[in-house]
Amino acid sequence: MTLKKSTGIVIIGGTACGPKASARARRCDPRAKITLIEQTEEISTATCGMPYYISGVISKRATMLQRNSAYFKNVFDIDVLTGTRAMHIDRKSHTVELMTVRDGQSSKIKYDKLVLATGSLPAIPNLPGKDLKGIVTLSRLTDADTIHGLVTTKGFNNVVVVGAGLIGMEMAEAFSTKGLKVTVIEALDRVLPALLDSEIAFHIEKHLKQKGVNVVTGQRVTGFEGNNKGWVKAVKTADQKIEADIVLLALGVKPNISIASEAGITIGQLGGIVVDETMQTNDPDIYAGGDCVENINLLTRQPMLAPMGSTANKHGRVIGTNVTGGKETFPGIVGTAIAKVFDYNVGRTGLTEASAIADGYEVITSLVPGSEHASYYPESRDILVKLIVDKNDDTILGGQVVGTGDVAKRVDVLAAALTFGYDVSDLANLDLAYAPPYNSALDPLHHAANVIRNQRSGLARPLTAAEVKRKLDNSDDFILLDVRSPEEYKTVRINASQTRLLPLPELRSRIDELPKDAEIVVYCKTSVRAYQAQRILSGAGYKNVAFLSGSISAWPYDVSMDWKSPLGRLK
Amino acid sequence: MTLKKSTGIVIIGGTACGPKASARARRCDPRAKITLIEQTEEISTATCGMPYYISGVISKRATMLQRNSAYFKNVFDIDVLTGTRAMHIDRKSHTVELMTVRDGQSSKIKYDKLVLATGSLPAIPNLPGKDLKGIVTLSRLTDADTIHGLVTTKGFNNVVVVGAGLIGMEMAEAFSTKGLKVTVIEALDRVLPALLDSEIAFHIEKHLKQKGVNVVTGQRVTGFEGNNKGWVKAVKTADQKIEADIVLLALGVKPNISIASEAGITIGQLGGIVVDETMQTNDPDIYAGGDCVENINLLTRQPMLAPMGSTANKHGRVIGTNVTGGKETFPGIVGTAIAKVFDYNVGRTGLTEASAIADGYEVITSLVPGSEHASYYPESRDILVKLIVDKNDDTILGGQVVGTGDVAKRVDVLAAALTFGYDVSDLANLDLAYAPPYNSALDPLHHAANVIRNQRSGLARPLTAAEVKRKLDNSDDFILLDVRSPEEYKTVRINASQTRLLPLPELRSRIDELPKDAEIVVYCKTSVRAYQAQRILSGAGYKNVAFLSGSISAWPYDVSMDWKSPLGRLK
Repeated sequence: MTLKKSTGIVIIGGTACGPKASARARRCDPRAKITLIEQTEEISTATCGMPYYISGVISKRATMLQRNSAYFKNVFDIDVLTGTRAMHIDRKSHTVELMTVRDGQSSKIKYDKLVLATGSLPAIPNLPGKDLKGIVTLSRLTDADTIHGLVTTKGFNNVVVVGAGLIGMEMAEAFSTKGLKVTVIEALDRVLPALLDSEIAFHIEKHLKQKGVNVVTGQRVTGFEGNNKGWVKAVKTADQKIEADIVLLALGVKPNISIASEAGITIGQLGGIVVDETMQTNDPDIYAGGDCVENINLLTRQPMLAPMGSTANKHGRVIGTNVTGGKETFPGIVGTAIAKVFDYNVGRTGLTEASAIADGYEVITSLVPGSEHASYYPESRDILVKLIVDKNDDTILGGQVVGTGDVAKRVDVLAAALTFGYDVSDLANLDLAYAPPYNSALDPLHHAANVIRNQRSGLARPLTAAEVKRKLDNSDDFILLDVRSPEEYKTVRINASQTRLLPLPELRSRIDELPKDAEIVVYCKTSVRAYQAQRILSGAGYKNVAFLSGSISAWPYDVSMDWKSPLGRLK
Repeated sequence: MTLKKSTGIVIIGGTACGPKASARARRCDPRAKITLIEQTEEISTATCGMPYYISGVISKRATMLQRNSAYFKNVFDIDVLTGTRAMHIDRKSHTVELMTVRDGQSSKIKYDKLVLATGSLPAIPNLPGKDLKGIVTLSRLTDADTIHGLVTTKGFNNVVVVGAGLIGMEMAEAFSTKGLKVTVIEALDRVLPALLDSEIAFHIEKHLKQKGVNVVTGQRVTGFEGNNKGWVKAVKTADQKIEADIVLLALGVKPNISIASEAGITIGQLGGIVVDETMQTNDPDIYAGGDCVENINLLTRQPMLAPMGSTANKHGRVIGTNVTGGKETFPGIVGTAIAKVFDYNVGRTGLTEASAIADGYEVITSLVPGSEHASYYPESRDILVKLIVDKNDDTILGGQVVGTGDVAKRVDVLAAALTFGYDVSDLANLDLAYAPPYNSALDPLHHAANVIRNQRSGLARPLTAAEVKRKLDNSDDFILLDVRSPEEYKTVRINASQTRLLPLPELRSRIDELPKDAEIVVYCKTSVRAYQAQRILSGAGYKNVAFLSGSISAWPYDVSMDWKSPLGRLK
């Protein structure tokens, strides 16, 4: 039985948005003629899984292929043209010019509605030596095949990952898992610089180093050196030269918009295709979605690029509905992202403190270590939450979570909260699921919100680790008061001449040992006791008291461990 | 150094809300005189951890004690009177009459502000034999000690848990872990009846049975039989008699309000103390929080009882602020709850379908099986999501999630979403964290929202498992079309005479084998293929087509497994 074809829908791009849009279009309209154009030989590839395919966590390549052309034909009645490149769009005649990749044969296809799901291209810096063999990018499954081949070949021992973004982090782990010596080079001062503030990023950096990864921040790559066989052998920065048999350029991606741009489709200031809420471009018969478009950031209402498979899938559904005569909208995103970096999970949503300030917000933040579930229930792992709040109205602007514990849950709750303009009180009172295997009576997010409220009411006076570090570096005259137990103090502490031990349960009885006019910064393990000590001291009339935000658990710098030195004593 | 005391704050109840309120009050006011009254010998007990202490998951009793009286004195400067019962409140003289439990000595304490954190009492049915030895409840740590003693004593082999609420479920697992033969008796037709709709509860029941627990629903306990030593030996229902060496009465709790009620504090229609948003009772100098108060359900704006440690802690903070002159409010709850039942996690938030209908809502629901993270990434476990939505405006009213996978995350996201009136489109477009170790590109919540949208637009026509079961029970004349592969069909299927196999990839080419006027209900593993098949059939002009909501994965009834029977063939 053949269905009569009505509307002709042509979709360019077969990775995520394209297949989703085409399948959705079919479900909405049984009669439309739908054609999906893909330049590689495969569609519906699980590109987000590539680092795990390379590392061996995903053992079979076939796992990376979700649905093939035959499935699309048989189930969706969609014609898939693989190995076919879209060369040119003639908007007037509603025609796309195609060319087969293998033999360069041209053809044309008519459309009533056209969908651009052309994805993104890896950014490649114009540096000397960039075309040497062994310098790779990771964008398509064929790239993953190339890298998979290299890491399983003898003689490839040293890898340099240029760029400490999400792909850089995931691939640092993947290469390391395969036994290679990995260096990550990042031009900015921290890993995941677009996604995280320093005090969270520093924990990832520390963890990478624990795992044997060489992390080089604040250095820009200036070029690549090759051997006489044309293979890369070193990566150069202004300061050093690092041996490399493989170089992964992980400098982010840019929207693949050449065919759209050439056809007069509006491109935005960030270099992506501009679409409205229905994913329609400036041409009412052309829609676009996935990595090639600009999204609206729901917090700033400004455009942003967010090349994510999750967003691409949502775009695809909206497009599939709208090209078949339906009406659906995609409001925008809040910049949620998550990554596994060895044993750490790290996620974020909304604005960073840095980006919020750059956007003109006045912010107030909290940094709260916590347990993923009731600490008395076995195997509770740690997380660290940073919350960023608008100082003017207490609205939540963003959050970052890192640790070995359940990070994803907190990031998703924060994403839901800030998408709808929750303030800190809303978050503090949120009725989250509690039972000992899943959470503490109060979630770390509740604490993070309460710490902000305590600052707002004047009860809590936190200092950031960076501020305390600066005071230590300046040899400021202050007391760094450790209120933990002597046993904890022996194990690990911030080992400065300013450090003094006075366990919290003794503070009230020994308070007169502390000079009333001294500047005192209290710390403990997580800040709970330090904040309590600050309240005791403030209540007793000490005027210049603060606590170290997040205390030892959040301290991103080196702490000295010294089992032999005598315990610090109050003078 | 002694601080001058100003306001006198007296707090009755030392489990969760009381200690929290007192510590918070101290942090807000360094000078207040604060006294915490507790009738048992211990405060700050981790009562939510009791099932795990009994099962041995938590091995040390000391783990259950979070902070003791000395800590409260030394750190918070709070006087804790343990073993002391509050007998009577004289509101006029602002005095509480106290009595020591051990020797019955009376005393009085004055208050400026009084806090009632008197908790709850286990409901005990007035049945013949209820006072026999071996019949226990689980409310305080001393109860846990009793049960801990029984389960580690030889000769206690059979246990009956009366009531299949949260404690009943957690204790069924705990007793079973200790090697006892467990029967759960529930008067209503399903386990967790106040929290779950049938199609989710049935999965828990199935799982309990897999784990060797005898589950008896729809039977009310009529009494208990004892032996000649005064110990229980059997539990009777109208239908049967079940051997029991231990009986746990887990019939829920009721607010412990006698002292409040006697003092003229307003008690609500549900039997809890009535408080306003500041947790103040009808007496401006008396606040109350924790299990003894009624909360506002933020969805219905009606009072509800929700004895949860999480809520009690939030109450405590608000009270601590307000009794020291601050101003903080607690808006209410949405009824979020979660439990571990053997290998299953089960959580819920908002209204059930049943309670929503009882509250006068017209609802639309979806039931969506999914993977906790990308199915191609190893070790992705399953979950099943039920979403309940207001038919009039698409607002989310509630959700239930069950499975071996990450249930807590989805429940918490739903709680955040429905607290602020998200509709299904908001949920469908929510920017949740995506990377293969944590999620699929679209979360099961996104799918659950989209299934509702597909029903609203007329694309999707689901039938519930109950509806399909009814058709099978009635021997209705319809085709139950299995569109999975022959291999899947062989392994497990809904084995009825109406069942026919036609794999989805062959459906378009073999569609004419299906009579155009037949009633067809399609199923697959998760509904994805079944929905697609329904779209193909609807598009081809079949008028009477639906799919089985959630398909095999959500089917809560028995499926027959029959390796020998010939594959079903279309007539």
